[in-house]
Amino acid sequence: MSRETTDLTDDPRHNLVIPEPEAVEDLEDLALGDDYALNPEYVEMVIDAADRGDTGRLRELVHALDPADVADLMGFLSAGYREEVIPVLDPEWLGEIIAELDDNLREEVLEATPSATLAKALEELDSDDAADVIDDLDEGKRAQVLAAMDEGDRAAIETTLAYEDETAGRLMQREFLAAPQFWTVGQTIDHVREAGDRLPELFFDVYVVDPSFTPVGALPISQLLTNKRETPLAEIMEPVTEIAVDMDQEEVAYIFDKYHLISAPVIEPGGRLVGQITVDDIVGVIREEAQEDILALAGVSDTGRDATVNDIVRSRLPWLLLNLVTETIAVSAIAIFQDQIAKLVALAVLMPIVSSLGGNAGTQTLAVAVRALASKELNAANARRIIVRELSVGAMNGLVLAVVMGMATFVFYHNAKLAITVGLALVANIVTAALGGILAPLALEKMGRDPAVSSSIFVTFLTDFMGFFAVLTIAALLLR
Amino acid sequence: MSRETTDLTDDPRHNLVIPEPEAVEDLEDLALGDDYALNPEYVEMVIDAADRGDTGRLRELVHALDPADVADLMGFLSAGYREEVIPVLDPEWLGEIIAELDDNLREEVLEATPSATLAKALEELDSDDAADVIDDLDEGKRAQVLAAMDEGDRAAIETTLAYEDETAGRLMQREFLAAPQFWTVGQTIDHVREAGDRLPELFFDVYVVDPSFTPVGALPISQLLTNKRETPLAEIMEPVTEIAVDMDQEEVAYIFDKYHLISAPVIEPGGRLVGQITVDDIVGVIREEAQEDILALAGVSDTGRDATVNDIVRSRLPWLLLNLVTETIAVSAIAIFQDQIAKLVALAVLMPIVSSLGGNAGTQTLAVAVRALASKELNAANARRIIVRELSVGAMNGLVLAVVMGMATFVFYHNAKLAITVGLALVANIVTAALGGILAPLALEKMGRDPAVSSSIFVTFLTDFMGFFAVLTIAALLLR
Repeated sequence: MSRETTDLTDDPRHNLVIPEPEAVEDLEDLALGDDYALNPEYVEMVIDAADRGDTGRLRELVHALDPADVADLMGFLSAGYREEVIPVLDPEWLGEIIAELDDNLREEVLEATPSATLAKALEELDSDDAADVIDDLDEGKRAQVLAAMDEGDRAAIETTLAYEDETAGRLMQREFLAAPQFWTVGQTIDHVREAGDRLPELFFDVYVVDPSFTPVGALPISQLLTNKRETPLAEIMEPVTEIAVDMDQEEVAYIFDKYHLISAPVIEPGGRLVGQITVDDIVGVIREEAQEDILALAGVSDTGRDATVNDIVRSRLPWLLLNLVTETIAVSAIAIFQDQIAKLVALAVLMPIVSSLGGNAGTQTLAVAVRALASKELNAANARRIIVRELSVGAMNGLVLAVVMGMATFVFYHNAKLAITVGLALVANIVTAALGGILAPLALEKMGRDPAVSSSIFVTFLTDFMGFFAVLTIAALLLR
Repeated sequence: MSRETTDLTDDPRHNLVIPEPEAVEDLEDLALGDDYALNPEYVEMVIDAADRGDTGRLRELVHALDPADVADLMGFLSAGYREEVIPVLDPEWLGEIIAELDDNLREEVLEATPSATLAKALEELDSDDAADVIDDLDEGKRAQVLAAMDEGDRAAIETTLAYEDETAGRLMQREFLAAPQFWTVGQTIDHVREAGDRLPELFFDVYVVDPSFTPVGALPISQLLTNKRETPLAEIMEPVTEIAVDMDQEEVAYIFDKYHLISAPVIEPGGRLVGQITVDDIVGVIREEAQEDILALAGVSDTGRDATVNDIVRSRLPWLLLNLVTETIAVSAIAIFQDQIAKLVALAVLMPIVSSLGGNAGTQTLAVAVRALASKELNAANARRIIVRELSVGAMNGLVLAVVMGMATFVFYHNAKLAITVGLALVANIVTAALGGILAPLALEKMGRDPAVSSSIFVTFLTDFMGFFAVLTIAALLLR
């Protein structure tokens, strides 16, 4: 029993209603595993409480969690249970929870929350996160929420929304710590103590600016603590990496990753400092961009764990229909040479192996190329070298596979010409796969398109067609 | 001309040899695009200087870059050119450049650098980065380098190396800022000023510890600047997210991403604070882990932009050989029903379409499942719901594709039974694909294996086999 309840123990009923300080701790241990992932058992406990209509228990279970975990919990619940959880959420938390939610859950929660509550919740967020949420509202509700907000917060959000989606302007906070070149460490510390509210909740670097408010250097705030008060900033500042306000978020992520930045100043075209981006916003971008590549290569967009069957069908069917068209074109190679197959059915058995191996080899090259392009390790400076290398790899892999498959074919069918046919076709297809797998993403990148999107359908088409075509034309020449 | 050279303009030759202060700036502009990626033209300039044997120019070009960009440049050069660049590198920079290099380049540079130089270079690095480099050395050189290092640095590196690879213990720095619970903001600031060298170069949070040195809270150092000197730390500290020293780096990355951490304390099993992990080390882990999934799904490991043809063949051929085996098993379904094809060659044309669409549908499900497992959005709490949803999506996609392909088959072959055969086989295969695409990664995850590795070969085998088998058995029943 906790100390706070000792004076009440003469009435045992009190022990049942007074919340114990340890109780929250215990629930937290139950909620999260050692890896800080939400336990399935905890989700069950929430569902049980909702089934029993026990709002008190529901509130207790939900409030034992961090906002990020509440957002995670919502994703594991079905829509009916979420409707019961939303009303018990603490309004002061709501903003942070909304900011953490998956896209389609966020829409659902936004629709279910009154505009006035939403306005209050968003005032608690940084301007970049609040703008992100506002952007998801329909026109009518957006106007209502903005009207209900504090003047300053509204202006900050509207300025942020004026920048294009997925650019530095959208990621940046408009609050930051800047100091003129001629200040000392002491003057800067005093300024921070006075500025108080005008500073962001968290800041990591001081940006040193010239009279036109252009950044000329930066220093981590730990340097303010470790250097003497009289040290001029100009003496200890380091070169600064500026981010243009219209830069794509993928580029911003690349720069943060490359130079190990914690924060960076954002500048307007003239060079004027207008905001800062911090690494915590970038971690999410890096994960999302890498995951987008996985999905794009598979020809699918992620509709989230809460998407309906209809949403998912709509996101996947177009790709499959496109695949039906390309595959129909690929098999036309078979249709043209049908007579060969009628004469030797073994060709129908062996063709798919040649096609499939080509497809796999092409996908290998493609995945490596997409990764290298994304991390800017492949560009005009080494493209020729990489293409030649991929062709050599294709030739070697093709030769080894051709020998293995040719021998297996001979053992099985006792037909040397058939074995040679299959072997030659395999070399041709693996080399074709290598060429397609490296040239398709390079060409898309050069055209300013995302190399992960649509290269895989092209490479699959190419290797399927080549697999059929090579087997059947070589057969037509050798086996007549 | 720059001001520094004006007094020399009476002798025009001087203008050619005296380095201008702007020159470094100009080179930097030439080197990097607006997106901070290395310009291919700059790589050409380096190659030109090396070809001319102009060491001075080479040194100038290389030293205009940031260490991260030098590492990037090395990746774009071929081995011969790298050999010319390595000797011109400033020894004080060498450590940082080595830390940034791609794995196989790093090995090359480590071999080319004398142990004494290496020991000096590594002393400039944080203990985690230095340990990482030491770990790449062969036994003999490792002993030499460690022996040449400063006592304290050697001890720190040896302690770090005692932890397993890819765990929190390896990522953490042993230097951090901790303060007892009863201290005030002012006492903490005074401690920082005195501690000086014992603190890491960069730190973002103060960890508040109890007498047993267990973290009980944390606060960002910006709070030291914005709060009054007499404020007790216990009053303003926030709950802290501890990382266990043996936690896998992928879990650490998940926690940093989820809770938007900038730094976190690392604790030993007893709870004692032993180090800190900062977000700049985690950004790289997040990118690497996501990229590993792309490559694993494609059945390839990245050997880097500098790998030899042999390295690449060795990394890709085993997967292709495995694919040859599984595909041979899959086509055995065709071999068994060869007579069907001999009777109706159209089956040989249509089968590959059914197989290919199944493969694509399976890959879509697989990519989404792997992503959801990686971000812990799919677990025991919602697995059943997701499986049912995938099956429904498979059935709907299968029906639509079956109708389209069935009609096309009828138009082309004027054979209703053939059209029905293909349609039924397609539904069966797309549903099979959905089941395989979701169950394979779930099963691998449950077995504690990486769901991205080897699920794709299983799903491809399954859909290829099912594609052939379904078309031919249904044909055997309907078309006799």
